[in-house]
Amino acid sequence: MGNVLVLYDSKSGNTAKMADYVAQGAKDIEGTQVRLRSAEEASADDIFWCDGLAVGSPTYVGVVSWRMKRFWDEIVPETWGKVDGKIACTFSSSGGWGGGAEMTCLSLHIMLMNFGFLVFGIPDYVGEAFTLHYGAVVAREPKREEEIAACQRLGKRLAQWVAVYVDGRKEHLPGPIDKR
Amino acid sequence: MGNVLVLYDSKSGNTAKMADYVAQGAKDIEGTQVRLRSAEEASADDIFWCDGLAVGSPTYVGVVSWRMKRFWDEIVPETWGKVDGKIACTFSSSGGWGGGAEMTCLSLHIMLMNFGFLVFGIPDYVGEAFTLHYGAVVAREPKREEEIAACQRLGKRLAQWVAVYVDGRKEHLPGPIDKR
Amino acid sequence: MGNVLVLYDSKSGNTAKMADYVAQGAKDIEGTQVRLRSAEEASADDIFWCDGLAVGSPTYVGVVSWRMKRFWDEIVPETWGKVDGKIACTFSSSGGWGGGAEMTCLSLHIMLMNFGFLVFGIPDYVGEAFTLHYGAVVAREPKREEEIAACQRLGKRLAQWVAVYVDGRKEHLPGPIDKR
Amino acid sequence: MGNVLVLYDSKSGNTAKMADYVAQGAKDIEGTQVRLRSAEEASADDIFWCDGLAVGSPTYVGVVSWRMKRFWDEIVPETWGKVDGKIACTFSSSGGWGGGAEMTCLSLHIMLMNFGFLVFGIPDYVGEAFTLHYGAVVAREPKREEEIAACQRLGKRLAQWVAVYVDGRKEHLPGPIDKR
Repeated sequence: MGNVLVLYDSKSGNTAKMADYVAQGAKDIEGTQVRLRSAEEASADDIFWCDGLAVGSPTYVGVVSWRMKRFWDEIVPETWGKVDGKIACTFSSSGGWGGGAEMTCLSLHIMLMNFGFLVFGIPDYVGEAFTLHYGAVVAREPKREEEIAACQRLGKRLAQWVAVYVDGRKEHLPGPIDKR
Repeated sequence: MGNVLVLYDSKSGNTAKMADYVAQGAKDIEGTQVRLRSAEEASADDIFWCDGLAVGSPTYVGVVSWRMKRFWDEIVPETWGKVDGKIACTFSSSGGWGGGAEMTCLSLHIMLMNFGFLVFGIPDYVGEAFTLHYGAVVAREPKREEEIAACQRLGKRLAQWVAVYVDGRKEHLPGPIDKR
Repeated sequence: MGNVLVLYDSKSGNTAKMADYVAQGAKDIEGTQVRLRSAEEASADDIFWCDGLAVGSPTYVGVVSWRMKRFWDEIVPETWGKVDGKIACTFSSSGGWGGGAEMTCLSLHIMLMNFGFLVFGIPDYVGEAFTLHYGAVVAREPKREEEIAACQRLGKRLAQWVAVYVDGRKEHLPGPIDKR
Repeated sequence: MGNVLVLYDSKSGNTAKMADYVAQGAKDIEGTQVRLRSAEEASADDIFWCDGLAVGSPTYVGVVSWRMKRFWDEIVPETWGKVDGKIACTFSSSGGWGGGAEMTCLSLHIMLMNFGFLVFGIPDYVGEAFTLHYGAVVAREPKREEEIAACQRLGKRLAQWVAVYVDGRKEHLPGPIDKR
């Protein structure tokens, strides 16, 4: 059954905390195997292994951190052209609201599309005026209930799409969107 | 079996020609039903109907044309939150290379992700130094062999992902990437 | 002395309120002439008139609203190629945090760059974990102190760059960044 | 008078060749001082020194190369908040048309806006159906006349905006746009 990789880079620990919640959410779908890896631990094999992946980077001047970018740049010769069709999503912690977390998720989407992955956003609201249309985003440490819920929802939705599309387990189709 | 919608806006006719080639490509996968609709003809029902959609807009100042944007803005109340999980890709004709066709595809991706669609790019090269990583892009009319091939490849890949993921017809998994 | 145009589209009134605060901020720099126009009132003459412009759109599926896009698409024949070098910035109100307000500002930046405008973001923080690196963004109505401050700071910074760069009034160079 | 920095990363040498042409173009405006630096040679002092900067990266999976990103990530503590208001533009060489060169320029724009720079695109056409609205882009080595012209035009326009806006030398205002 579906394999989910949660891949992150983190210096302050904030994006690492998000990654933990994303992994938690993915485990909500029974049968899902989850691997949690930092950009420094991960290898091309992790990318080959997974059916779905969630990629998280701190927001550094609005674009993926150089450490996470190096991981992807360096595995190009080994993986590019052999991994398309996997399902992917993103998350980021920034220094403040309006500080570029959506932009950082965008840079990750662009990278992932280049590999031929299918990238998705999430219409659901997870709190009052709080959503994750372009990936889960928080300012600094994920602490408030809706920030944690955003990370969990992201992981769960990833595992759902993997269950439905890769494993053909249609019973895991997400129910109606949470519009609040 | 899989339903593919090719939705486009076009004033000069260039993006309309791309749409024809995209539709042709989708028909390469047997069993695929294809609808071709302009933004003025299409309705929310077309979005409900399809499993996969390719959306094309002319490049107008680097962002989706207002007519195509109006289509999506106006169907939000009826469709938003009810159509996520469909598979989508994009195409655009601009006035010149370097003129924003990739950017226009990006604006379409952003719109589509907001609805919860799974959007994809294509690693394959379809000619000498010619690819479609962020959707099929041409300058003006699609005329050269690789420009036409890009549109066809886009439609075909869309129909393949729909066949594999929505219909579970794994025999339609794309073969090895064309790296040239 | 410097002419600043604040151009906006708004249906719910939220982006219109932001526009008012942006205009207020621009008036902080003495000598600045400020025009406030909706996309339906504005004409190509307003674009010719201004030295700096702030453009605001509601976040509709993560990209500029069709009404604002129509304004720009329709003035292309009259203005494109005659207005480059003006200084520009953006703002947007979305339905929720993580809902695409940064993305909507991005679509506006892409449009403005196509015209040859110089577009800028703002490093300053205007509240605890609250900034406007890619334009002023709020969720729904601008109500909290930092949301209002973001709009005002945007307008003021625009008027400052116009004063410094267009008028040569170097005494209006912004002071040190507010890092909080 | 105006100081222009041309900062690039290059592995194959293609983006380095673009950088040479950009630097050539900047020298077209008399009085302009030009520095050409790779991301490995450059330091924070180069950023403090310049009034205008052109930043070039190869297109690696559609986003700035990790080496160029590392340069910017690492100078944040020293420069961020002290360098806003400089004028900036971008360039990129990709593996093929449609391969993400515009996207890579976009990631550079996002980074530069975060620092508070004023970033610009160029409306001018420099060849048949060939322009540089979002920075100069080429596929592989810059060889064709219009590819070289795009790089030179970028450097020249940067030097012009610096002359006009920073030095107040209004005689260097660009003439009418080249629409072809």
